[in-house]
Amino acid sequence: MSLTQVVLGIDIGGTNTFFGIVDEEGNCYLHDEIPTQGNLPAESFFERLFDSFRRKFETRNDKFELVGISLGVPSANHFKGTVENPNNLNWGYINVVELINKYYDLPVVVTNDANAAAFGEMKYGAAKNFKNFIEITLGTGLGSGLVVDGNIVYGQDGFAGEIGHTIVEENGRYCGCGRRGCLETYVSATGIKRTVFELLSIYHEDSCLREYSYNSINSKLIYEFALKGDKVANLAFEYTGKKLGRALSNVVAHLNPEAIILFGGLALSGDLILSPVQRHLESSMLHLYKGKVKLLVSRLMNYDNAAIMGAAAIMWHKLKAVVPSGLLTEGKDKLKF
Amino acid sequence: MSLTQVVLGIDIGGTNTFFGIVDEEGNCYLHDEIPTQGNLPAESFFERLFDSFRRKFETRNDKFELVGISLGVPSANHFKGTVENPNNLNWGYINVVELINKYYDLPVVVTNDANAAAFGEMKYGAAKNFKNFIEITLGTGLGSGLVVDGNIVYGQDGFAGEIGHTIVEENGRYCGCGRRGCLETYVSATGIKRTVFELLSIYHEDSCLREYSYNSINSKLIYEFALKGDKVANLAFEYTGKKLGRALSNVVAHLNPEAIILFGGLALSGDLILSPVQRHLESSMLHLYKGKVKLLVSRLMNYDNAAIMGAAAIMWHKLKAVVPSGLLTEGKDKLKF
Repeated sequence: MSLTQVVLGIDIGGTNTFFGIVDEEGNCYLHDEIPTQGNLPAESFFERLFDSFRRKFETRNDKFELVGISLGVPSANHFKGTVENPNNLNWGYINVVELINKYYDLPVVVTNDANAAAFGEMKYGAAKNFKNFIEITLGTGLGSGLVVDGNIVYGQDGFAGEIGHTIVEENGRYCGCGRRGCLETYVSATGIKRTVFELLSIYHEDSCLREYSYNSINSKLIYEFALKGDKVANLAFEYTGKKLGRALSNVVAHLNPEAIILFGGLALSGDLILSPVQRHLESSMLHLYKGKVKLLVSRLMNYDNAAIMGAAAIMWHKLKAVVPSGLLTEGKDKLKF
Repeated sequence: MSLTQVVLGIDIGGTNTFFGIVDEEGNCYLHDEIPTQGNLPAESFFERLFDSFRRKFETRNDKFELVGISLGVPSANHFKGTVENPNNLNWGYINVVELINKYYDLPVVVTNDANAAAFGEMKYGAAKNFKNFIEITLGTGLGSGLVVDGNIVYGQDGFAGEIGHTIVEENGRYCGCGRRGCLETYVSATGIKRTVFELLSIYHEDSCLREYSYNSINSKLIYEFALKGDKVANLAFEYTGKKLGRALSNVVAHLNPEAIILFGGLALSGDLILSPVQRHLESSMLHLYKGKVKLLVSRLMNYDNAAIMGAAAIMWHKLKAVVPSGLLTEGKDKLKF
């Protein structure tokens, strides 16, 4: 019986790390998670990770052949294969590819989570037929993966796609990056919380949200109150959508994409977020683009293991670019990125 | 004696059209100009153009072999080979490639002037070794050519790179595009004029510029007064540079280029424009990019025929991409874009 070729996809978060093996069709097997324990060095993380993975994989290595390893991690430098002083991991500056190659002599790619989501969207999600699109990931912050002619834009140093850190308001909200007015201070799970508190200060209407402290509130709660008709919660979505729609109209003037795809928690709020984004995007765009840019919700999110699949999709893209005909076993030794 | 292969580069402006043949090394021959007469249909324009070109070329066709034709023109759709309702030409919607192929059965490319400048910069100017850079053309408006991995970003419909129409000021200056606050209303030859008039209204200092009507002033005059120490003229450059530097810091967050190159009249103002752009760009950028993005003045502008060379560079890029080894004569028939 021939083995099914699979890629190990790893999604490293601040708290937990998820992993699983993914075949080219997007079937995900053996998925599991370990605590990231970001206070410890990277070496001990990968030891625990591969220990955990190996034990699972050994039970099935009569079925699967591992052909690559793909890592979604904050502060990834795709070109160098390094992770460079991530905010929430005490790893310093490390060469991840070298580290992983001590365990597996296989092709390795590293990228950030937004680029992984964009690749996953292209291979398994809503962007299957798109060559030019923008993936916006709405989490604690706002990430973006820019796809031009079917490839991720990495830029000169691998740091392209920081749309969350475009400044949309002069002297605006303070951002974790040390500057003010970054898009993600308005448009993200944290951004909408900040908006709620600004709105509570401006309006005098009663609102269920007046019962909550800043630390006890989250975007899901704001969503639920908005559905119940709470005025401040609804205004918060409208304001968030306006900020995002306007910022996206500038992104469109840069890249003329055919679609913009929203991924992450806030994107699950349906029309509450889509409607204002669509309205302000359409009214703000230059005439050249009006009516031509689709605004879509991620379909990668429909999968339980979206982040793992996104990471794995990057490796599949690379493997297929080098060995399009499928004779992967012969080609993979050449694939050290 | 073997013939020198050349591309016919054509730069169509609102008033005059410049053309010339350019060899791969960037030597430009037989350059000339004709009035564009944009009120007349495109058919009559190309008849005059090729009539004029043919008469010059016939005297030298023992020396040169024409291998392609390349056109820089407003509202060009690179993918379709069309020009679509340009503002200052009464051409409507025409297929330029088909029209030109009636005269010459050769590969034809069309693009706008900013993309032509970017290609020219890459082949003959300041961007010879760059794969990721932004060309900013400062004329009556502000154009931009975005280069990622050595290729122009065209986007889905060929309209990428409209950085001049990113909105940098909510409810800002009225723009010819029908919206408000576009970057080019601040940063362009027209923009700096508008800034002078705003500053004359704000400050009460004496200024030589108070003697001029809006219609009698131009950016060169503002430059000359700034050199003489006129306060308003100097403030106008500072303000223009601030607006551009800040806008570019957002462009950098999109594309992470290694360089930004300024082309066009305002770029000739030296430190008057470069210094504030550099200062505000550097102070506005996200930490990831600080100290890494070169700000340069075009070296393509050093040539008398920069626009012609820019147009020709696009065709040379295409020809070489298809027939890298140089056997152009055999390959060119396949090169209908």
